[in-house]
Amino acid sequence: MAGEKKGLQLLDFWVSPFGQRCRIALAEKGLPYEYLEQDLRNKSELLRRSNPVHKKIPVLLHGGRPVCESLIIVQYIDEAFPAEPGLLPADPYARAQARFWADYVDKKLYDCGTRLLKLKGEPQQQARAEMLEILRTLDGALGDGKFFGGEAFGFADVALAPFTAWFLTYERHGEFSVEKECPRLVAWAKRCGERESVAKNLPPPEKVYEFVAGMKKRFGIE
Amino acid sequence: MAGEKKGLQLLDFWVSPFGQRCRIALAEKGLPYEYLEQDLRNKSELLRRSNPVHKKIPVLLHGGRPVCESLIIVQYIDEAFPAEPGLLPADPYARAQARFWADYVDKKLYDCGTRLLKLKGEPQQQARAEMLEILRTLDGALGDGKFFGGEAFGFADVALAPFTAWFLTYERHGEFSVEKECPRLVAWAKRCGERESVAKNLPPPEKVYEFVAGMKKRFGIE
Repeated sequence: MAGEKKGLQLLDFWVSPFGQRCRIALAEKGLPYEYLEQDLRNKSELLRRSNPVHKKIPVLLHGGRPVCESLIIVQYIDEAFPAEPGLLPADPYARAQARFWADYVDKKLYDCGTRLLKLKGEPQQQARAEMLEILRTLDGALGDGKFFGGEAFGFADVALAPFTAWFLTYERHGEFSVEKECPRLVAWAKRCGERESVAKNLPPPEKVYEFVAGMKKRFGIE
Repeated sequence: MAGEKKGLQLLDFWVSPFGQRCRIALAEKGLPYEYLEQDLRNKSELLRRSNPVHKKIPVLLHGGRPVCESLIIVQYIDEAFPAEPGLLPADPYARAQARFWADYVDKKLYDCGTRLLKLKGEPQQQARAEMLEILRTLDGALGDGKFFGGEAFGFADVALAPFTAWFLTYERHGEFSVEKECPRLVAWAKRCGERESVAKNLPPPEKVYEFVAGMKKRFGIE
């Protein structure tokens, strides 16, 4: 099955940064796949059956067999299709570093971003302060490197790149400028955006902002 | 550096299931290391310097270079010392499955366990119901397999095994029997406990219970 390029399907939702990670990885590997947009308010039988534990997108089906959780999917794509370019480097220490920063994005950035968008008043100010610390930590980890792993676009870049489409939304809610606070991170985001794999799979930042505004309206958060 | 067995040090705390994962992985690989017990109420300069982002144990130092986050450490150990036995299987799909269950333990079991121990009344009853669902899901995933990956003790087993020392504490707080609810999981825990790597690195369940009771007393939770 591994290495068999036929029969790849992605259960996804257009604005999901987690789904976008999988799309970027598939594009980096040059793999054709069937994109199956999911209605998350009325979950399909296929989604429920493919991810019975979490019932969440993204799910990659490969010959009908499901792989769940975005970072696990990206690693699966890298391992099942080992032809260059590799998303994870060969050196075990460099692999651990890439995994550390991808994990940091999952544990810190997404959760903090959600609080920044949902909350008001003092709790929102707390989320704003945390968000700036998280972005500065990522900026520091990148340093003067071209990508998180150095010269090559890789696993940590795939993990973080989709969130660059959310920067505008974070900025408007938090009233800060990512460019002013973290110029190296913004320069990195531009480099990522020059790659076809990223450019073709990220929504315009204004669309993300509109999506969030619509969600807030629906849930009565003004 | 990879494959160099000298200069392995583990910054850890005796009761931590996350630290125990690393100890089990090191023991499975037959790797000697220096164990450095940390005082988490007065964090050492070495811990702060080695894990500046999270400032948490466990940290594995290999020739002075730090690797953080327990599942990343276990994968590092597996990749830097690839001699048999491998903790992750060779097949990409089987690797994804092992990572899925390890990730499930991280995302669900630990957090739910903490709530079960800390809360009272209705919120605790909610945590109790969730815990039973989590344990049943793991019992179902194991099925009639010897280990999570089948015949061989591997990555998902390493991730979950330390929590078996917490089952007694969960049972006493939640007033349920893991054996009654999940007999296959308990049989699996016994099989894990027969391995030297696990037996030598897990604390007696009564010690975990005493530790939790001490923590609750200190934080004024009766």
